[in-house]
This record gives sequence, C-alpha cells and structure tokens, in this order.
Amino acid sequence: MTTAIPGYTAGTPTVARSPVSLADFALMQKSVLFGDDDVRALRQSYDVVEDQVEAILDVWYGFVGSQPHLLASFTNTSSRDPIGDYLAGVRRRFGQWILDTARAEYNQAWLDYQHEIGLRHHRAKKNQTDGAASTAIVPFRDLFLLVVPVTTTLKPFLAKRGHSTAEVEAMHAAWVKSCLLQLTLWSHPYVKDGDF
Amino acid sequence: MTTAIPGYTAGTPTVARSPVSLADFALMQKSVLFGDDDVRALRQSYDVVEDQVEAILDVWYGFVGSQPHLLASFTNTSSRDPIGDYLAGVRRRFGQWILDTARAEYNQAWLDYQHEIGLRHHRAKKNQTDGAASTAIVPFRDLFLLVVPVTTTLKPFLAKRGHSTAEVEAMHAAWVKSCLLQLTLWSHPYVKDGDF
Repeated sequence: MTTAIPGYTAGTPTVARSPVSLADFALMQKSVLFGDDDVRALRQSYDVVEDQVEAILDVWYGFVGSQPHLLASFTNTSSRDPIGDYLAGVRRRFGQWILDTARAEYNQAWLDYQHEIGLRHHRAKKNQTDGAASTAIVPFRDLFLLVVPVTTTLKPFLAKRGHSTAEVEAMHAAWVKSCLLQLTLWSHPYVKDGDF
Repeated sequence: MTTAIPGYTAGTPTVARSPVSLADFALMQKSVLFGDDDVRALRQSYDVVEDQVEAILDVWYGFVGSQPHLLASFTNTSSRDPIGDYLAGVRRRFGQWILDTARAEYNQAWLDYQHEIGLRHHRAKKNQTDGAASTAIVPFRDLFLLVVPVTTTLKPFLAKRGHSTAEVEAMHAAWVKSCLLQLTLWSHPYVKDGDF
C-alpha cells in the first residue's frame, strides 16, 4: 500500500479481541473442509487479483447498485439517496479485503479484525467508521447470500492469468470457503448470546 | 413416500407461520442470484438423487461422525455417547429434506417449515421432536460451513446419471444457492430480534 486506508485498523490496538478463539476457528475450518490446499490456492490467487482489484470492485459495486434492497445499506436515512462518500470509503477497505483474503494469514490480529468487520455491519458500529448518516444495520439475511455473487463474478478474474481450469476451480472453491468462514465470524454480533 | 416420517410436519397445522414473508424470500433469491434456471436445475436433480438418498446420507453421516465437534450435537449430555435413535430419527427427515430441496416448491407451507427446521436446530426446539437427551443447541458457527461438505460430496452423485458436465455444474450451483437460502431461513431463531 502506498497510502493509508481510512478506517482500516487491522493489527492496531483499537481493535478488540475476537470472542472466537483460534482453536474455535480451527474447528470451523474442519467443518468447511478448509485445508492447506485452500491456503495455497488463496495465496496463488493473490498475484492473480492484485492488479484487478478495481475491476473486481466495479463488478461487485455494479451488482449491489442494481439491487435496491442491497443498496439500501448505503443510503441516507432522510433522503434515501446513496451516500457517495460512504460508498467510496467502504470501497477502499473492500479492496484491501480482497488482498487480505488472498493473503490467507490466519493469526490473532486477523481474527480480531474479522470481528471488527462484523461489528461494522451490525448496528453495534455501522456508520461510525465513515461518519455516515445511513441505515442502522446491514440485515443478517443478505450476508451469506452475497457469497454467491461475490465468488461467481470473481471466477472470470481468477481465470485471466493463464491458470489451468483445475487451478481456477481450486482458487474459486477456496474463496467460497474463506468467505463462509469470514461471514460466520462477522455474524457473531448478530447472534444471540450463547448461541454462536 | 410409503410410510410417514416421524416428526416430518411440513404442511401441517402444527407448524407456525414463518417470520419471513414470501416477498422477503424473493429478495433473498435476488441476493444469491437464484433464478428460474436454478429451479430447473434443482428439479432436474430430483430424478438423479431420488434413488441415491441413502448412499448420500451415508456419506454425510460419515463426515459428521468423523468430526467430534459436529457429532457432539447428537450426543447424550450425560454419557457423551452418540444417541442412535436420535441420529436415526433425524436421518429419515434428512432424507426427505434432500427430496424437498430438489423439488424446489417455494410456497408458504415450505417457508413455514424452514422456520420449523431452524427452531429444531436452535435451543427453542432442539431435541423435542425425537425426545432426545442431547445438547441444547446446534451451534450457529457450523451451520453455513456445512454447506460445503454437503454440496461437495453431493456432486459425484449428481454426476452418476449421465448428465453433461455443464448440467452437473448447474445442479451443483443451484444446490449451493438453495442451501444458503435455507440456512439463512434456519438462522432466524439464532439472530437477535430486529437484526435479521
């Protein structure tokens, strides 16, 4: 990175400790069949996506922008209009999220920041990072569903650097698993106490 | 069905109305890119899986049985041993779930029964259907993660009836989307009031 991304606080003392332990996360990886081959596939995807981040974000933002029930989470609660600064602020961190997902470094700082991301989707901390006058919460119902448009539209980008079909499939599958793991971690603030 | 399945109450008056409306569900389908082609692919899979249900369940039960943190939800809270009757009772409804998923008939009765399934995973109604002396809840953290082993191990079964690679891929993708939709519905009892 050449410039700091506002609100990207991974690895800083402002991020609270995750309520999920690394041991819990290791079991979650078993549940989703996430193994060393997935780590390798994600890291292989790093070089593939690194210089396509903006093009990928264009597709993802295009999808969200085309669905009023999804775009709602970025709208001003008074005017109902999309908030440009909010969309732009989130976008920069979303680009960094692509790289962090491909990096696949699972340590305590990574786990803690996943929880922070969850809090920022939930009413606990939504809007705070960007000072946005927007809706109170990203509804739970859409969180996991978005794994499909995100990873389906990512696949053509994964195929653009000459890897074999099998390699592209492996990268895609690893991305799906990683997204499900991350979404599960992000869900913690939404889930009733003791039910996670 | 030739014999009634104990506890399979879909479409009966004992099932409460889902807190999620059919209009909500239609938006959820948009979020996960679920369309008419997915309905067709699921229904195409019906004939494929119909006479393979027991073999599919063998694989799924084999996976859960091999993972102590997953098998825990089927164990006796005193002895810590797996409860055979409980596993068998759930298995019969799980087999019906395969057929119902492939049938892809989304009406109010189906929606209501999805909520009932969620309640039976959650502490609200776990164990009641089978009178099992088991753990209080299936933890939220594993629910969505299991979509991967379920759909990944299903894929070879989808390929066993001579369909083209593209058809098998389409059936598999539709199953993934349907599972994410259903898991989202099942999560409702786990999610804090107002956050769904």
